[in-house]
Amino acid sequence: MFQIDHLGIAVKSLATAKEFYRRLGLQLSGEEVVEGEQVRVVMVPTENSRIELMEPTAENSAVGRFLAKRGEGLHHVCLRVPDLPAVVAKLKQDGVRLVSDEIKTGAGGHRYIFVHPSSAGGVLLELVEAAH
Amino acid sequence: MFQIDHLGIAVKSLATAKEFYRRLGLQLSGEEVVEGEQVRVVMVPTENSRIELMEPTAENSAVGRFLAKRGEGLHHVCLRVPDLPAVVAKLKQDGVRLVSDEIKTGAGGHRYIFVHPSSAGGVLLELVEAAH
Repeated sequence: MFQIDHLGIAVKSLATAKEFYRRLGLQLSGEEVVEGEQVRVVMVPTENSRIELMEPTAENSAVGRFLAKRGEGLHHVCLRVPDLPAVVAKLKQDGVRLVSDEIKTGAGGHRYIFVHPSSAGGVLLELVEAAH
Repeated sequence: MFQIDHLGIAVKSLATAKEFYRRLGLQLSGEEVVEGEQVRVVMVPTENSRIELMEPTAENSAVGRFLAKRGEGLHHVCLRVPDLPAVVAKLKQDGVRLVSDEIKTGAGGHRYIFVHPSSAGGVLLELVEAAH
């Protein structure tokens, strides 16, 4: 029951990124601002998963700082796991570094936590709970 | 018919990366050396896609140079497209920068081409042809 829920890509310009994915032949969602993360996002659904294009709405946001430091590119991978609390308990027990101590609740009530790149092969890995 | 075929992650140590993904509860394929790319890879299948863990077998390989420059992390995204030659013709017409001029043929006869990160929001984007 593990799925790649989406890939997050940090971009300077949603307009330019949207043009590229449209050119490939993909359909795009409308733009939406996620206030908590200070990003404007567009979802690019594929048949089996989704790509999330993220443009920061503030330079000192997490994505804004990522862009300043590393430039445009892959920002995170989101993996859907069958039992989030059990996975998190196991990771903690094994000394895996998490970005927050506890599971957070996002928009729409979905629960998530981030694994720090230093513990996940350089990848900022978001874990979300599979729908029941 | 667009699908995320796999995500490629560059790692220094397959052993360490494998331990992390096993800990999450995922099943892993056996290790395989891809001579042409000078990498040793392990596939991590998810329900809907795959993660490819890549450890370079030579420091001056593409993945070895990536690790030296950027450290461990997401290396490329592979997108399966319905009609690869048509997509490539359109990208060329639109001035999109490709890593090679022509579509290449890899192991098992699958056809692929890479879009340069400068044209794809900082992402090294591999395009492969969907099976017919």
